[in-house]
Amino acid sequence: SLRAHLGDISTVELAEELPRMEVTEQALRFRLLPKDRALAVFEELDPVHQQELLDALKDEYVRDLLDSMEADDRAKLFDEAPATVATRLQAQLSPSERRATAQLLGYPPESAGRIMTPDYVSLRATMTAAEAIERIRSLRSRPRHLDVLPVTDGHRKLLGVVDLPDLVAADPDTVIADLVSLEHHEVDTDVDQEDAARLIQEANLNALPVVDHEGRLVGLVTVDDAMEILEEEDTEDAARFGSAVPLERPYLAAGVFRLARSRAMWLTVLAAAATLSISVLSRFEDALAAAPVLALFMTLLTGTGGNSGAQASAVIIRAMAVGEVRFSDALRIMWREGRVGLTLGLMLGTLGGPIVALLYDPAVGLVIGLTLLAVCTWSTLVGSMLPLLANKVGVDPAVVSAPLIATLCDATGLLIYFSIALAVIPGLA
Amino acid sequence: SLRAHLGDISTVELAEELPRMEVTEQALRFRLLPKDRALAVFEELDPVHQQELLDALKDEYVRDLLDSMEADDRAKLFDEAPATVATRLQAQLSPSERRATAQLLGYPPESAGRIMTPDYVSLRATMTAAEAIERIRSLRSRPRHLDVLPVTDGHRKLLGVVDLPDLVAADPDTVIADLVSLEHHEVDTDVDQEDAARLIQEANLNALPVVDHEGRLVGLVTVDDAMEILEEEDTEDAARFGSAVPLERPYLAAGVFRLARSRAMWLTVLAAAATLSISVLSRFEDALAAAPVLALFMTLLTGTGGNSGAQASAVIIRAMAVGEVRFSDALRIMWREGRVGLTLGLMLGTLGGPIVALLYDPAVGLVIGLTLLAVCTWSTLVGSMLPLLANKVGVDPAVVSAPLIATLCDATGLLIYFSIALAVIPGLA
Ligand SMILES: [Mg+2]
Ligand SMILES: [Mg+2]
Ligand SMILES: [Mg+2]
Ligand SMILES: [Mg+2]
Ligand SMILES: [Mg+2]
Ligand SMILES: [Mg+2]
Ligand SMILES: [Mg+2]
Ligand SMILES: [Mg+2]
Ligand SMILES: [Mg+2]
Ligand SMILES: [Mg+2]
Ligand SMILES: [Mg+2]
Ligand SMILES: [Mg+2]
Ligand SMILES: [Mg+2]
Repeated sequence: SLRAHLGDISTVELAEELPRMEVTEQALRFRLLPKDRALAVFEELDPVHQQELLDALKDEYVRDLLDSMEADDRAKLFDEAPATVATRLQAQLSPSERRATAQLLGYPPESAGRIMTPDYVSLRATMTAAEAIERIRSLRSRPRHLDVLPVTDGHRKLLGVVDLPDLVAADPDTVIADLVSLEHHEVDTDVDQEDAARLIQEANLNALPVVDHEGRLVGLVTVDDAMEILEEEDTEDAARFGSAVPLERPYLAAGVFRLARSRAMWLTVLAAAATLSISVLSRFEDALAAAPVLALFMTLLTGTGGNSGAQASAVIIRAMAVGEVRFSDALRIMWREGRVGLTLGLMLGTLGGPIVALLYDPAVGLVIGLTLLAVCTWSTLVGSMLPLLANKVGVDPAVVSAPLIATLCDATGLLIYFSIALAVIPGLA
Repeated sequence: SLRAHLGDISTVELAEELPRMEVTEQALRFRLLPKDRALAVFEELDPVHQQELLDALKDEYVRDLLDSMEADDRAKLFDEAPATVATRLQAQLSPSERRATAQLLGYPPESAGRIMTPDYVSLRATMTAAEAIERIRSLRSRPRHLDVLPVTDGHRKLLGVVDLPDLVAADPDTVIADLVSLEHHEVDTDVDQEDAARLIQEANLNALPVVDHEGRLVGLVTVDDAMEILEEEDTEDAARFGSAVPLERPYLAAGVFRLARSRAMWLTVLAAAATLSISVLSRFEDALAAAPVLALFMTLLTGTGGNSGAQASAVIIRAMAVGEVRFSDALRIMWREGRVGLTLGLMLGTLGGPIVALLYDPAVGLVIGLTLLAVCTWSTLVGSMLPLLANKVGVDPAVVSAPLIATLCDATGLLIYFSIALAVIPGLA
């Protein structure tokens, strides 16, 4: 009845539940699955969990599973496994599968070559639609990816692609050359995986051909993998924007030490940067002693600065990630965000200034109002410009995290605050 | 030669460049495109830009374009246009296209029914593969989506799906019933669009059938739209995590007023919440006057608390968004994050405490060390638990933004700081 129960759960659910069990339990359930289902579940697991499960399974079972995996999934598994484990697993593969995986692993990490699949069929431009379909039917083992059929010449040069629906809908006598899409996309093996994935999204492709430096077809990046890559990249950006180093594995598969390590560096750097605010405050110690009421508003003012900076940077970083905004838009963005910051600052300043004037002191109210205005404008500009600058110097814009912006705005906000206080409050300077 | 130039640019590039031009320039270029290319470019534009362009084009051209659009894209355009514009555009449609769009718009916003396409072919289980292919070939106009072929009975009930590659690779005499995928997924019309899109991703589907409450097939959600939805949803989460309200349009298509409005509410709420820290500080005014050195470290300590809280919440919010973590994991996460916070606090405390002791005063050093330890642990717990709680009470976890966490940790961090100071520094209490 366990077997019957397993039959009720979908592959997706099984791949989600399995890693939440004890590993011996995982192996037990896994072995009850029919072969093709086991393979489908296994391919959907994260490489960390694949490895765990392989460790718990019998060797013969492992060999079979590894040999049936798609080359790109296998490359990912080997890539993330410790070198000794990868070597041991690789030795169990059949020669052809070993070669296929080795080829992918020969391309740079996070490149199109690394994530493409060799499991497709290519056509010749001179065939007819009927001949192409016959060719697909007559293949001994069905390739995994038939949605997009690359068309090549005698030297494996990519000429274009035919979408399977077009092939099927066409008159059987149509020549393949006439079915080739008017427009086709291709990428080089060393193009960044994220760029390849975004192209698949933007051009609504089911698969994107990958070519070598001579324009020869070497593989296809498929849409399912593009979706996975974009999810991974967005997960990395989310972590970076929280000023943590990406975990490179599912959250629950990362131990306490790995989690702490992923945050320690930035937390320390930011604490060091926060000492800037100590030196700003030291400079204004006398003013603080003369008007201790000023200390009350420090957190509110620096916090508001950090918040408006984080708002701007969150939106700009994302607009850059999805390709809406580029460095050449910097001036235009500065002009927009400057006015946004001014608007927000005016709003908060005219709200906060009078309240403080009433509750505390008119001069202090004026200082708070002016500081809110200045701090919102300044922080919004910092938050919007830093991601663009980071990108310009080759740094991932997402590292301009909310905490980084908050820390920078803390020190500069205090500087603005006390400068205004010295200018406005009589006898303080 | 403008026409020749347009021929060199891909549809994707054109859809990206067009909205960056003056609208009359856009219309000029657009009219030079061959009809099918113009349609492809138009469908790739954001609804805001589609509207802009429609306004600048001649009416007859508009009617043609609207009528050729895919129903789901058109529904999205009408949905986001002002009601009067939508009504005017709708009136120009042919009756069948108007009906198709009206049907989609009848489903709730952001539901599977709203984003599905009616442009597919369904098969009967009793057909042979050859008959199915013949049926596809004989259709007068080619449906847009043929990658996944839903199989229905005489009452439009969904029985399963056949993938086009399986149909093509099969022996022509095979019965469709034997080609139906062992496992198939379907969703109800009112399922959230994000859930439908994530299912497409997790199950590696090219299209997901949508059924009504009686299980009758009504449409397909296609993978290209799933990718777009996930990108939109992640863009929304990114904005929320920066405590801005999502823009619902491309960044550059949002004016200064819209940008300011999207940030004003949270900025005000957070400033109001920041007054909490004023009341905490007021409570400790005497201590602050007695030991003004304490003021120097306020920003560093509250900042570090906010940073470790933001680190935790960023990672947990994302893990929830991609389905790695659920509310039932709360205790496990608390136990993990508590230790992570303690580790980070120990690290910073043993680093910062002695430095302050040396540069300032041993007692102050002890206070700073202990506060760093306490603040990191506390903030990490707050940052990791709040998103789970938000989700539990039906609020989007992403609203537990970095600024919100920073603001909460500012007040509580000050409370911790001064409590420790009063306990440790002799004569301060
Ligand atoms: Mg896979
Ligand atoms: Mg990358
Ligand atoms: Mg798209
Ligand atoms: Mg793959
Ligand atoms: Mg990235
Ligand atoms: Mg990575
Ligand atoms: Mg702060
Ligand atoms: Mg589209
Ligand atoms: Mg939603
Ligand atoms: Mg997948
Ligand atoms: Mg669509
Ligand atoms: Mg969402
Ligand atoms: Mg939305």
